[in-house]
Order: sequence, then structure tokens, then C-alpha cells
Amino acid sequence: MNDADILITNGTVVTMDSAETVVENGAVAISADRIADIGPWEKFSDCRAKKVIDAKNGIIMPGLINTHTHAAMTCFRGLADDLDLMTWLNDYIFPAEAKLDDNKVKAGALLACAEMILSGTTCFADMYLFEDAVAEAARAAGMRAVVGEVLYDFPSPCYGSIEQGFAYTENLIQKWHGDPLITAAVEPHSPYLCAPDLLARAEALSKKYHVPLIIHVAETRAEVETLEDRYGKTPIAHLENIGVLSPRLLACHCVALTEKDIDLLAAFDVKVSHNPESNMKLASGIAPVPQLINAGVCVGLGTDGSTSNNNIDMFAEMDTAAKIHKVNTLDPTVMDAKTVLKMATINAARSLGLDQVTGSLEPGKRADVIVIDTHKPHLTPMYNLYSHLVYAAGGNDVDTSVINGRVVMENRRLLTIDVAKVMADVNQIAEEIKNG
Amino acid sequence: MNDADILITNGTVVTMDSAETVVENGAVAISADRIADIGPWEKFSDCRAKKVIDAKNGIIMPGLINTHTHAAMTCFRGLADDLDLMTWLNDYIFPAEAKLDDNKVKAGALLACAEMILSGTTCFADMYLFEDAVAEAARAAGMRAVVGEVLYDFPSPCYGSIEQGFAYTENLIQKWHGDPLITAAVEPHSPYLCAPDLLARAEALSKKYHVPLIIHVAETRAEVETLEDRYGKTPIAHLENIGVLSPRLLACHCVALTEKDIDLLAAFDVKVSHNPESNMKLASGIAPVPQLINAGVCVGLGTDGSTSNNNIDMFAEMDTAAKIHKVNTLDPTVMDAKTVLKMATINAARSLGLDQVTGSLEPGKRADVIVIDTHKPHLTPMYNLYSHLVYAAGGNDVDTSVINGRVVMENRRLLTIDVAKVMADVNQIAEEIKNG
Repeated sequence: MNDADILITNGTVVTMDSAETVVENGAVAISADRIADIGPWEKFSDCRAKKVIDAKNGIIMPGLINTHTHAAMTCFRGLADDLDLMTWLNDYIFPAEAKLDDNKVKAGALLACAEMILSGTTCFADMYLFEDAVAEAARAAGMRAVVGEVLYDFPSPCYGSIEQGFAYTENLIQKWHGDPLITAAVEPHSPYLCAPDLLARAEALSKKYHVPLIIHVAETRAEVETLEDRYGKTPIAHLENIGVLSPRLLACHCVALTEKDIDLLAAFDVKVSHNPESNMKLASGIAPVPQLINAGVCVGLGTDGSTSNNNIDMFAEMDTAAKIHKVNTLDPTVMDAKTVLKMATINAARSLGLDQVTGSLEPGKRADVIVIDTHKPHLTPMYNLYSHLVYAAGGNDVDTSVINGRVVMENRRLLTIDVAKVMADVNQIAEEIKNG
Repeated sequence: MNDADILITNGTVVTMDSAETVVENGAVAISADRIADIGPWEKFSDCRAKKVIDAKNGIIMPGLINTHTHAAMTCFRGLADDLDLMTWLNDYIFPAEAKLDDNKVKAGALLACAEMILSGTTCFADMYLFEDAVAEAARAAGMRAVVGEVLYDFPSPCYGSIEQGFAYTENLIQKWHGDPLITAAVEPHSPYLCAPDLLARAEALSKKYHVPLIIHVAETRAEVETLEDRYGKTPIAHLENIGVLSPRLLACHCVALTEKDIDLLAAFDVKVSHNPESNMKLASGIAPVPQLINAGVCVGLGTDGSTSNNNIDMFAEMDTAAKIHKVNTLDPTVMDAKTVLKMATINAARSLGLDQVTGSLEPGKRADVIVIDTHKPHLTPMYNLYSHLVYAAGGNDVDTSVINGRVVMENRRLLTIDVAKVMADVNQIAEEIKNG
């Protein structure tokens, strides 16, 4: 290895590749947007790198991937908590969302990008209104993102009628086609807010462009009852019936599933986004993730939006994901730390169709790399890397972040976002909301 | 207000007093070890303070109180995870503990103190071996602590026989009597590892010295079955039967309770320490905390040790406590953020018999005060103080900490602990453990 643009050295490299390779005293070389090589530091002793990042004996690992969020909801963080879902939605969230526009969504999404980079996330999948503004925010922040305009049966504050919603989505796909960071997806809200025609058309559009189809599904028992009343089927069986299940589908939440639903998800290779903190905070329930994994379903982890969490820190989400299934099954072996870390890295990438691009540190993949500073009291001593990352570390321990070969944070300083301005912008939006 | 030793100004003061007073643009004046006054900043415009701490428009609040931990278990953080309880205890924890001594326990406890101060905890209740070393560590760190040597039916690596265990405990109580920071308690391990005679004698000692009696109880269903087999009673009913229930008793965990148990705890004004993350990670179950609170039981929050958590960050614990009961009951209104913050402050103090001393910001109380830096992306914007502190903030957002009128951390720099040395000491202990 003679030349590199960036050499990250002096750390334990946790690759999350299929062999679960860990390299002690290792280094990662980056050339342009790609990982060029990984190995023990001696391999790089002759390497002339334009930039050297010292991991200070910490951990070098793939950036985390948040498979389900609504980034711009940072604008409403803490606006309404500890309420039942319908009061929360109808009295607080929907009225606030009716006043959104491109500029507000971009500001909220940029704030979310700052928070995500600061807590080790390098890629996120988003569903919201004015989603082109989210894509613009992610591009400005240098983050990898899957974006999709939310589609439903009623008029949207963004695009108006559903016809225009599909036009907006198709434009989004065409505009961002070939972008190194941004993928556009087709994102119908849910089977209870989208008629079968809308869902079938969304699936056809996803198929046409080979992009993900992302939906909320089986989030609550009430939703299941609604669907059973309306169609005589569970939400998953309903989606199968109208031909929407496919390997391109990312089904978010999947809390209230039957065994047959799990079999269907596995049979169609549907991907699942697991959002435990949101499901806890909204009192939705606990998704049967161990059963899904046992059935062979690929499960990625996600935070959901910052109104139902209320942070979007994937390290906190990993900790919760590892614990909630233990207590739910009264079995401490049911969800180990390594499985959870996969859900936040390589399996998250797979769930978004991005596993050839990101999700692990392997030569040829895009360089989405974070460095963890382990020289801290709460990360001392260290017996087990995976346990440490899931149970002890927090987003704040991420020191440096590289996305697509670009350093976006170094020593906790954000390099792509004017964070003081972004915070001021969102505080201004919040003042308008408070003043009605 | 003319003079003060410390004036903490330019923040929103969240007092946690009985009126739930919040003072915007407020300040807290400290004289010697006490809170002298609290009010809007104008009240202090003439105040000459020896030291002024600028809260930078953040939050000024009582330090958090961890009602149950085993501080020195930092030495074993991540040594063994995702295992069933008996494998974990017998194959990993007990063999490691057999090699402990005063010096190792002091080093581990000092590391825990560093971690706790860095995450906003100003007082902790500890149960472990070589507990005088924990008291020495807390005194060195400037932390408030309730300490107690663990007592059980078999010989201890610290004191040997139970006779010597009681002597050790009585010495501990006498040595630390009148100390401004340290209270010694009587701490029998649990009703399954302590015979009725031991428990009755522990209660008598606690009564003699008016100090807390602290015990693990009803932590798992297996424990309940053991006690029912042995005594024909639930653990709580067994403790009542032998005369151990009293307002001095702090019952830790209380996961597996009957309605009658809850009534007994309420009738005897027993205090409960709730440890949700440990109960989740060890797959013990979910304590019926909403029912306990409804029955009038005072519940404090605790992290348990760092082998079963694996950090001892009370902000993370608050977040989990607020969420786990919502999903357990499928009711998002069952445990609101303010109730949880009380569990980590004033009700935690009450559970340790320290509510006249600490747990809220009120003139005359000891000055245990922390300052939260809210000028961060994940704490922007702010609609609701309590929700922010419980759902969005983390221990890392604590900027400055004052305990008993002494600044122990300022701008995240620890002033009482040589943190590099403490981390090196515990890393050395871990190397010995790894090498068997």
C-alpha cells in the first residue's frame, strides 16, 4: 500500500464483514470514496497518506445506519410526550406539520444530520413531507440517505393530491439517480392510510426504478384490528394479497405480527426496520425480532423520528434493542450484542439495498467509517468489543466520521454543517410553533 | 443576597421541590456546603460571589441520585454478557470477585465515581465487598454515598465469617458517623442468601443506629419460587414475617411482586429501588412501578452495577424507566417524564433517608447541583424541560457538578479524580483477570 487519501490508524478495526474480522492494532486506507485496504498497521508502514487520522487506540468501525427516521421532526422534539397516540397526532403533530415548508424541513433535517453525525450515524432512511429538502440537507451534510416522500389517501401539505404525490416521487427518483450519496425510494405511509390502489401503484413505481419501497406496517394492535375489519386480513397478509411483498420492501415497526405474517415476510424476503424506543415510548408493543431473525428475515435498526424517541442516537437504540427482547422473553441469550450491532450496520445496509455499498468495512466498499474514543471512564476496562459498543458506549463517544471518503466530523467538530446557524434556525421555527 | 461562595447563574433552575418550582433566567447561590438562595438572576445582581459559574442558558438542577449500584464492578464491565444468570455468576463474577481486595475495590469505585460525576450523579447507594474502600473512594472523589458491606450466609472474601461481617458493618457505621458525605448502612444481600436470623440481626443493627437497611429482594421469579419452597411465603411476606419491613428498608429490584406484596410495602412505608436496565439485561422482568407509585410507595431509581447494565449513567436509566412501563402496560400515560425525574432526585433522596439533605434545590439543603449544557443539536429545540431531561439528554450533557458545595467537575473536567491514573489502575486489574 503506497498511497491513500486518508489513513485511519492505531485502532482496533471491527469490520462487520461476513467473517466478523477484527484487526487489532489495525488501520483502514481510503482512496477517493472507497475503502482501499484494511489490515494490521505494519502493512501501511510505507503508506503515504494525504491525511492521517489517529484512532488513539480506540475502535474503527463502519458508520451506523438508521433504517427509519423522520429527520425534520427535530422541529417538534418534545412538543408533546406521554400522551395517547391520537391526542398526540391530532392535537399536536398534524397541526404543526400543516405549517411546514421546504425551508423548515431542510432546517430540521440539517439539525438531524448534525445530531446523527455526532452520534455515529453515516446513513439514514427517511420518510417525510418535502422530502427533496431532506435530500438537499443530507447532501449538504455529506450524509448517505434514502429519501422518500410520504404518500397517503388524503391531500399532503407538500404536494396536494396523490397524483401530484406520485409525480413528486418520480421526479425525486430521477433527480437523484446516480447521486453518490442519495437514493430516492417510494414511501406509502401505511396500509391503513393508503388504499390498495395507491399501494399497488407505489409497488409498481418501486419496481420500475429498482428502488426501495418503504412503509409503516403492523405498528400497533389497533392497526391490525382496523385492517382486519376493513379487509379481513392482517396488514402483512393484506400486502401480500395486493402483491406488495417483495425483497425491495422495507416494513417499518412490524410490532403486531402473527406467525403466518412472519412466514410471509421470510418467504418474500421482505426487510424489517426495528424501532424499539419509539415502540416503547408510544406504547405500541415489542416487535418479535428474535422470531423474525430465526425465520431468516433481515432486520435493520432505526430510531424513528425525534418526537417519539426523543433523540436519534443509534448507540442508545442498540442498547435498548439488546435489552428489550431479553426481558420480553425472560431469556438473556435471545439477542446478543453482536446480533444487535449487525442490525445497525451490515443488516441495516442490506435492508436498504445498500449492502454492496456500505454497512461493513471491506475493500471496494464506500468509505463510511467512524472512530470511537474508548479512553473514557465508562469505556474502561474493555473485555469484549461488541458488548462495549452496544451496552456501554454512547453516540457521544464517536470522535471522527468519514462518509463516502469525506471527513464530516473530526475530534467531534462538524466539518460540513454550521451547527450554530442550524440550531438558531430550528429554534426560530419552534418559537413560531409555540406562538401558534 | 450580598455574599456567596458560589453563584451559578444564567440558567433555568429546575428545583424538584414540592411545588415543582422552575425559575427561568435564574440563579442558585451557595454558601459553604449549603444552598443559600434561589431566584431570578436580578435577585443576585449585587451578590459578590467568590466563584461564578455560567450555566450558559442551560439547566440548573439537583444532582441525580443512584439508589442502587455496586461501584467497584466497573472492574468487570463487559467481562460476561448475554448469559443466563447462573453461568454469569458462577463462571465469571464469583471467581473474579474472589480475587478482590481493598485496593482493587477502591480503584474500581473511583472509576465508577468518575463515570458517575461525568454523567450527573452526585450521590449513590452502594452494596459490595470491602465497602470501607468504597467509602474512601467516594470521599476522595467528593461524592455523597450510602455504603454497606454485603452480608450473607457464606464466608466473604472481605471479612470471612458473618460474625466478622457484623463487626465490619458496625465499625463502618461508627467510623463514618457524622461524615458530611458518607452514611453507612446495613446491607444483607437478599432473603435467599441470608437466613432469617441474619436478616433479623441486620434489622436490629439498622434500628440501633438509625441507618438504612438495604437488600435485594424479589429480583426474579426464580427467587420467589425458592422462597416459597423454603418458607411458604413470597420474599416480601417472608420479610414481614421476620419483622424486617420498616421505613428504613430500601428494597432493591422488586420485580416479582404480588398485589399483597405491594400492599405490604406501602403499609410499612418500605422504599423501593427500581433498576430497569439491569432487570432487562439479566432478563429478570419488569417491576410493577406504576402500581407501586399508585399504592403510595416511594420509588427511587438505580442503575445496578456496571456488569449488568453496562454503564451507570442515570440519564440513560431515566429514559429507559420512562419507556419500559409504557410498553409493558400499552399505556403511554402511565409514567410521565416528571415522575421519572422525581425517581432520580427527590424520591431517590427520600428512599435513602436523605431528603432533608439533598434531592432538590431548596435553601438550607446541601448544595448538590448540576448544570446541563443544552446548546447541542440533540437538545434543540426545547418545548418541555422534563421531557428534554428524560428523553433527549444524556449524561454527557452535564457540564458542571457541585457536591456539598464543592465543585467536583467544571466544563467536563474532573477536579477531584486523576482520571488517567484511575483508568490505568483498573486496566491493570482487568489484565490480571484476563490472565486468570
